[in-house]
Amino acid sequence: MKKEIIKVFAVWALFLFWTTGALAGDQKLLQEAQSYFEPLPSKPPTIKDNPLTPTKIELGKMLYFDPRLSASHLISCNTCHNLSLAGVDIQETSTGHMWQKGPRNAPTVLNAVFNTAQFWDGRAKDLEEQAKGPVQASVEMSNTPERVVATLKSIPEYVKMFKKAFPGEKDPVTFDNVARAIEAFEATLLTPDSRFDRFLKGDLKALSSEEKEGLRLFITKGCADCHNGVNIGGNMYAPFGVVERPGADVLPPGDKGRFAVTKTASDEYVFKVPSLRNIELTYPYFHSGKVWRLEDAVAIMGSAQLGAKLSQDEVKKITAFLKSLTGRQPEVTLPILPPSTDRTPKPILGKVK
Amino acid sequence: MKKEIIKVFAVWALFLFWTTGALAGDQKLLQEAQSYFEPLPSKPPTIKDNPLTPTKIELGKMLYFDPRLSASHLISCNTCHNLSLAGVDIQETSTGHMWQKGPRNAPTVLNAVFNTAQFWDGRAKDLEEQAKGPVQASVEMSNTPERVVATLKSIPEYVKMFKKAFPGEKDPVTFDNVARAIEAFEATLLTPDSRFDRFLKGDLKALSSEEKEGLRLFITKGCADCHNGVNIGGNMYAPFGVVERPGADVLPPGDKGRFAVTKTASDEYVFKVPSLRNIELTYPYFHSGKVWRLEDAVAIMGSAQLGAKLSQDEVKKITAFLKSLTGRQPEVTLPILPPSTDRTPKPILGKVK
Repeated sequence: MKKEIIKVFAVWALFLFWTTGALAGDQKLLQEAQSYFEPLPSKPPTIKDNPLTPTKIELGKMLYFDPRLSASHLISCNTCHNLSLAGVDIQETSTGHMWQKGPRNAPTVLNAVFNTAQFWDGRAKDLEEQAKGPVQASVEMSNTPERVVATLKSIPEYVKMFKKAFPGEKDPVTFDNVARAIEAFEATLLTPDSRFDRFLKGDLKALSSEEKEGLRLFITKGCADCHNGVNIGGNMYAPFGVVERPGADVLPPGDKGRFAVTKTASDEYVFKVPSLRNIELTYPYFHSGKVWRLEDAVAIMGSAQLGAKLSQDEVKKITAFLKSLTGRQPEVTLPILPPSTDRTPKPILGKVK
Repeated sequence: MKKEIIKVFAVWALFLFWTTGALAGDQKLLQEAQSYFEPLPSKPPTIKDNPLTPTKIELGKMLYFDPRLSASHLISCNTCHNLSLAGVDIQETSTGHMWQKGPRNAPTVLNAVFNTAQFWDGRAKDLEEQAKGPVQASVEMSNTPERVVATLKSIPEYVKMFKKAFPGEKDPVTFDNVARAIEAFEATLLTPDSRFDRFLKGDLKALSSEEKEGLRLFITKGCADCHNGVNIGGNMYAPFGVVERPGADVLPPGDKGRFAVTKTASDEYVFKVPSLRNIELTYPYFHSGKVWRLEDAVAIMGSAQLGAKLSQDEVKKITAFLKSLTGRQPEVTLPILPPSTDRTPKPILGKVK
């Protein structure tokens, strides 16, 4: 009987020791994680020179979904940054006006307000500047600021909305204000409350043990040296292939990334480190969009950026962790767009002169 | 003093006589209107062999917005039947796979459940049959039923949704069920409570006097002989140009309408009479989409169908009435679509073999 009691006690002590140990390990992991990452806020940040008002956000939503911002009246922001698809188009690279193929994979609009700059090469300093790009790009929406303004001015409901959204301005329907309104809406497109966010806020049970091991690897292997902060990326630049350049399919030699912006030799093949939030949903991966499996992307990052040949098990665990970054997707009610009038420029489906 | 009283009394009597007369006239107009038209229900009708359940409607909404129903993964039902734009694409004719131009103007999906048949030539008997068309048309979504089913079966969340939406079925992920779910969602896309509906239900003040005059003309000139019922159209066929054939721009000789379906000589240039609900929003007009102004469309209908040269004033009044047919647009929350998997067929941007 005594022996029995000792046995039970020993098992119980072992269990206590093990769980306390695990708990201590989890606490340590949490502290380490907190030194690299921040939970995603559920409210948009303050934007300099662009106060977010409900009317401006609503106007921005209308513009975001309005295909009349494109020459063809067929392509809206939501075409390539589809809010049913985590703010991307799940294409290698985007397809635009006249079915032309764009040069790079469309980055997600979700949480993009927290990125340090916009586009893969960071050529736009914020979402306002970004919004003006695709509207004018000949392979995307292929429109002109003049036609956009003429279109919006031809629609009385839009004129009213701009007046309300930009009070006190004499001529509020401008291309700048179009971009400001879109930025205001986009700033609201956040995906808080991922399981990783809950972990970061102290809920040690929010991640499974496999995901925790993945997180540990993500930190120890060096992934978190670039992918960190509130967006787990999006806040710095890095050469793609810092240790070992990936194949030409994944890193096409013609696209030299940030070099095109800065014309500095050291910026060749440098790209903005993308946010890994919702990465499970924003396939295919990399600026070339050539990699469809998240596991493959993780393995490529290991060899190209860290010079580490990650084992299958390590890749699996890191991938499991990455999937815990999927947050609550924004609930968006489709805007009802006001009708065109006789003065609205007609769609142009061919080449825009 | 007596004279004064008589004067006041006379004016008052005149006013009473006038308003009573106007009221009597309005009452008569209402009765006449009620013999031609029905108010739009705010709830979908019962659909034979396709009970509308919340899960099926939700699944249908996901499919309606999912571009993976197309070969390119770029085109969804909502591309051409945009619910931000009254269920149309505001294009002359639709643009599809590889930027190909379709042959006809996209009819609105709104209230389409009340049409007697679907497509301009009525070749689909209901929305279920209709939904299968564009998915397979080479100039639209250019997909195959097999690839659609393989795509959906590769996505576990869809498989679960189909099981719930079609309980008791052994293999619920079928092309037929895709179409049934889409039909279920589309049946909910109604625009009740237009001002004309309120008038029809007895609110004599719901229409302005100009709109009432327009309604009167709409009946007396003969428009209502074809455009009647709950959808103010959509319930019969008619030759376009029954009295005077419009120009080849509006009625291209190559498109013989219902003739292609029935191969009957008398069906040459016969089309389904379109619903006029939300007509203000569903420009451009006719199966050719060649007419952008509603006033022009009304005038063409007058000469082509009724042999009546409508005066500018008559056109204006009928147009005013038609604008009272704009109803409350459906409020749609964007669905969040489940991610593809390794087994999901990849998008095809080129010609589909």
